[in-house]
Amino acid sequence: MLTAAGRLLLDEGIQRFTVERVAAESGASKVTIYKLWPSKGALALAGYFATVEQVLEFPDTGDLERDLRTQLHAFVELLTTTKAGPVVRGLISEAQRDPVLMRAYLESYSGPRRRLAVERLEAARAAGQLGPDVDTEAVVDQLWGACYHRLLLPDQPLDTAFADRLLAHLFRGIGHRGRRP
Amino acid sequence: MLTAAGRLLLDEGIQRFTVERVAAESGASKVTIYKLWPSKGALALAGYFATVEQVLEFPDTGDLERDLRTQLHAFVELLTTTKAGPVVRGLISEAQRDPVLMRAYLESYSGPRRRLAVERLEAARAAGQLGPDVDTEAVVDQLWGACYHRLLLPDQPLDTAFADRLLAHLFRGIGHRGRRP
Repeated sequence: MLTAAGRLLLDEGIQRFTVERVAAESGASKVTIYKLWPSKGALALAGYFATVEQVLEFPDTGDLERDLRTQLHAFVELLTTTKAGPVVRGLISEAQRDPVLMRAYLESYSGPRRRLAVERLEAARAAGQLGPDVDTEAVVDQLWGACYHRLLLPDQPLDTAFADRLLAHLFRGIGHRGRRP
Repeated sequence: MLTAAGRLLLDEGIQRFTVERVAAESGASKVTIYKLWPSKGALALAGYFATVEQVLEFPDTGDLERDLRTQLHAFVELLTTTKAGPVVRGLISEAQRDPVLMRAYLESYSGPRRRLAVERLEAARAAGQLGPDVDTEAVVDQLWGACYHRLLLPDQPLDTAFADRLLAHLFRGIGHRGRRP
């Protein structure tokens, strides 16, 4: 069911996504689907999450900056070279006017994705690679959130060079070195 | 005209915003308005820009981090305690499906706002307070873009404490001090 939902969403977009079609393509009944996912939005997002999960996996080589770079490059490529970009833009846009979809988005997609990122960051902190005062939730907004900002408002390009700059700023700081304490 | 447009937008939202109403409230003719702003979206955004310009001014006391904190606190307050938050969410959401509104948003609002931020950051670089390799456009996404991310996807709270964390990460870096080069 999740495979069918993710494929349907990425192939045809949220407008053509229906529980009926997921039922038809997966062979499951609508009743079964609604037992597991309370709304069309929740099903679409769970399917999307499952579909992109492998692509967006967090490696752990022991080098945090390198692992984040690997993951962010995959994330940017997903958003810019597949239908994931338009799908995500459509979902975030719809969710602003549809509280049920918003809740589904937060519970079935962005919340779980944030947790995976925070887990990787906390593992790095445990390994002594992240400062004790770092707010790992805010780091999520300064890496992936910054990318979503360019996806939604394309004033400036969203590409892997941008992802590298985001990491450089966070890992080396933006202040002039001579003035740092 | 801009004052009337900004007030109408913040008082009633984008759905009830029309060129007719701006004409009626400002005393200008529709022809005059359309000469200056090619679309309803462009007029709404120019009015919004003019209305929030003073609130979102960039101070320059010579202390970049402090000045950014002042401005970011005002920005977060604007988005969370006035109708600016819902208005901006609505505009960004509509713009994903309306290319004319998207162009107006980029040209009349987010582009000019980015330029003001980049100017302040470049002044700090000229004053020796910003590293030579810093990409000031990417800093915009890691401060204001991170806030828009929480505005649009409220997994985590958007507040002034969050703004302070964003600044701390960028100015002090997230890596563990003992491991920094």
